[in-house]
Amino acid sequence: MEGYVYTVKRQLPPRFAEFVSLAHTVAISIDLHRGHLSEDPDCPCPAPRARDVVEGVNRFHVAARRLGVPVIHVRSTLRAGGVDDVNGVPSAWRITFPLHVGDIPNAGAHALAGSRWTEFVTEVAPGDLIVDGKKRLSAFYPTDLDFLLRNLGAKRVVLTGCMTDCCVLNTAFDASNLGYRVTVLADLVRGTDETLEAAALAMISLHIGVVADSGDLLAEWRRAGAGVRP
Amino acid sequence: MEGYVYTVKRQLPPRFAEFVSLAHTVAISIDLHRGHLSEDPDCPCPAPRARDVVEGVNRFHVAARRLGVPVIHVRSTLRAGGVDDVNGVPSAWRITFPLHVGDIPNAGAHALAGSRWTEFVTEVAPGDLIVDGKKRLSAFYPTDLDFLLRNLGAKRVVLTGCMTDCCVLNTAFDASNLGYRVTVLADLVRGTDETLEAAALAMISLHIGVVADSGDLLAEWRRAGAGVRP
Amino acid sequence: MEGYVYTVKRQLPPRFAEFVSLAHTVAISIDLHRGHLSEDPDCPCPAPRARDVVEGVNRFHVAARRLGVPVIHVRSTLRAGGVDDVNGVPSAWRITFPLHVGDIPNAGAHALAGSRWTEFVTEVAPGDLIVDGKKRLSAFYPTDLDFLLRNLGAKRVVLTGCMTDCCVLNTAFDASNLGYRVTVLADLVRGTDETLEAAALAMISLHIGVVADSGDLLAEWRRAGAGVRP
Amino acid sequence: MEGYVYTVKRQLPPRFAEFVSLAHTVAISIDLHRGHLSEDPDCPCPAPRARDVVEGVNRFHVAARRLGVPVIHVRSTLRAGGVDDVNGVPSAWRITFPLHVGDIPNAGAHALAGSRWTEFVTEVAPGDLIVDGKKRLSAFYPTDLDFLLRNLGAKRVVLTGCMTDCCVLNTAFDASNLGYRVTVLADLVRGTDETLEAAALAMISLHIGVVADSGDLLAEWRRAGAGVRP
Repeated sequence: MEGYVYTVKRQLPPRFAEFVSLAHTVAISIDLHRGHLSEDPDCPCPAPRARDVVEGVNRFHVAARRLGVPVIHVRSTLRAGGVDDVNGVPSAWRITFPLHVGDIPNAGAHALAGSRWTEFVTEVAPGDLIVDGKKRLSAFYPTDLDFLLRNLGAKRVVLTGCMTDCCVLNTAFDASNLGYRVTVLADLVRGTDETLEAAALAMISLHIGVVADSGDLLAEWRRAGAGVRP
Repeated sequence: MEGYVYTVKRQLPPRFAEFVSLAHTVAISIDLHRGHLSEDPDCPCPAPRARDVVEGVNRFHVAARRLGVPVIHVRSTLRAGGVDDVNGVPSAWRITFPLHVGDIPNAGAHALAGSRWTEFVTEVAPGDLIVDGKKRLSAFYPTDLDFLLRNLGAKRVVLTGCMTDCCVLNTAFDASNLGYRVTVLADLVRGTDETLEAAALAMISLHIGVVADSGDLLAEWRRAGAGVRP
Repeated sequence: MEGYVYTVKRQLPPRFAEFVSLAHTVAISIDLHRGHLSEDPDCPCPAPRARDVVEGVNRFHVAARRLGVPVIHVRSTLRAGGVDDVNGVPSAWRITFPLHVGDIPNAGAHALAGSRWTEFVTEVAPGDLIVDGKKRLSAFYPTDLDFLLRNLGAKRVVLTGCMTDCCVLNTAFDASNLGYRVTVLADLVRGTDETLEAAALAMISLHIGVVADSGDLLAEWRRAGAGVRP
Repeated sequence: MEGYVYTVKRQLPPRFAEFVSLAHTVAISIDLHRGHLSEDPDCPCPAPRARDVVEGVNRFHVAARRLGVPVIHVRSTLRAGGVDDVNGVPSAWRITFPLHVGDIPNAGAHALAGSRWTEFVTEVAPGDLIVDGKKRLSAFYPTDLDFLLRNLGAKRVVLTGCMTDCCVLNTAFDASNLGYRVTVLADLVRGTDETLEAAALAMISLHIGVVADSGDLLAEWRRAGAGVRP
């Protein structure tokens, strides 16, 4: 199958079968909730470029479910009251990101449990799994994602969502370190801007795993798996 | 003090004092050992661009020690026999990186405990601390680095070493998630190439912490601390 | 102040001040929910002896809040559908505990998210903190308890709840390993039976921290702190 | 096969086959080094009762290796200089255990890297695996034991060593939480005294896994496996 190496799309050698095999694969969608995607001026942590992937992620999830691939939706949630962040050790992005994008007026409301900002924009089907309580950049921290993947018997993860150059990249690093084979879908992730998005995908392709388009991965799954998941 | 935001050097606002304060700061140097830096053709995981920072890192460490900042040297070590990697779940980079740089003939010898490849190229002073057993990309996994930082009472870490777009970046993500304030020294880290190095530093400056030159940080420490470390 | 050493109540030497100081202390109550305490024959994981501590824990929490000590309530919750346990890698207790107590008819319903079994029996005050998603024996796994304690700046934890010889003991081990000073309140924890409860407290007193009565700890806090929490 | 339930030896039901199967099983020996077992009056952390299991553990390891079961030896090691413990956040046992056993004159030398106290008393064969850097009570903290077990593809662990009521028990809790099936060999572990040893084994049998005699486990392995390890 084809994947991106650095920024060039190429045929991947046979050894990559262990990354893109259908068996024991889990799809993980990162932070596609209103807190990043809302068009409301009060959106507490805007990632507007990622609105473009919502429909594609939904379509990918439909296909994944049909092939028996579990779908996990990860979302950031912080305890109301701020103890986890603004009143504890504040997340670094609150201090650094405004240097680049300017003041974020409603950032204090980001990810607060029970608020509308934690609602998923993507479709969550019955049988999908939710990982709540992502509190920093990695989907693994401090959540039960690794625990869940162990209980699912997962060996491979396929990542979508936002943002490519922070939470997706950090999650890809952690998943790879933990021994999972990682694929990131280039058409279903979005970064801060085109430059950092492309650079993050290049890093992933060099150090972490497969960067591919969702259509190519689904074609590979269908070819190899014929719809049967061991 | 000045730092890089995205790629532009700017004056940082006062709030960044909590990142660059001298107190409770630890310097962490990542993977500056022969396995990456040797000029031997058998070098198992070459990162030749990082040879340029060895002298600068040594000078920074001399200054840090004088100011009472503990210096930690992290290195990759894998059990002889390969159970941790080539005969277990092989590191992803062994499969992905050759797509970009071509075959790495002696990669199987990378980081093997007891081999010369694990010897530090930078100077290790008496009183410095060593974190052995980095086995994947992050200096935190599966090592005792977080345990050590807790016992040191560390609140801030300053990162140097290689490579900016994989191990340094992954370590910066993890340190920030764990609540440490992170500074990465732009002149004392090196990446795969100039493009990915610059992109990784831009990501760090937007999402994780301070990117600065070592001279500026030392000047800030001397100005603020007057050599006294609380 | 007095504490239990093995099974004997004795005056503790001055060095134990660092365990029982009021400052940076957090009270943690473990698994005092309907899933363990309900008198319903359908109770999925009965710990009937622990019903006796509910009132005492409530009183202790009232006093703790007055002294400015944050109160954390930990509870087991498992995803509906069973993927975390009965349909994943089943918890060992499901297999081992019935050898001793006989078949537990409704064990499959234990801790299911959204069920009444996850409701706290103890009083949860506004401002208290909840740690959801304990899924095995330790309150730290796979939860955000350590993350929360870091954000609270906690140095000391005081444990109550059930059961002394499994979840309380496992939590005490983990907290101590992570560097928190641990006190377990002998009158506010209950074990499987008197023998294992006494033995678990003896182990804690020898290897982990302070075992004391709640009245003695509160008296110590009032004496030392005079109600002011640094 | 037979195991102990609470303190009574009984036939275990068929479901326990998943605990005592030979496949994907790893033997883990905990802290059988000179720092605990030496008869020298300077022994920094004496566990004299555990001297009795050294020969039995050696014999068990010989049999395990013949059946293809990897043998892991875990040992405590602390950085020379004391930063990990006496000069950091001192281990709780240093403060609590002397209340019971009296002053331990040379405790400061416990587990110091490079000292004779870290030498194994049990036989370490070529091909055995060593986990260094246990720094508190659990063999998992802050070591790479879980990482190693993942790379070995382990599903089951068999624990021996000392002491039953602290490090063995804490390790058994952690291994079980992480999803490994745990067996503790009653004849090859020793506790602080007979009472706490028996109580710890009872707790393990009720909440964590199988408590059995090594002869019974080896007979089961030979019966089932006929020497072939999948």
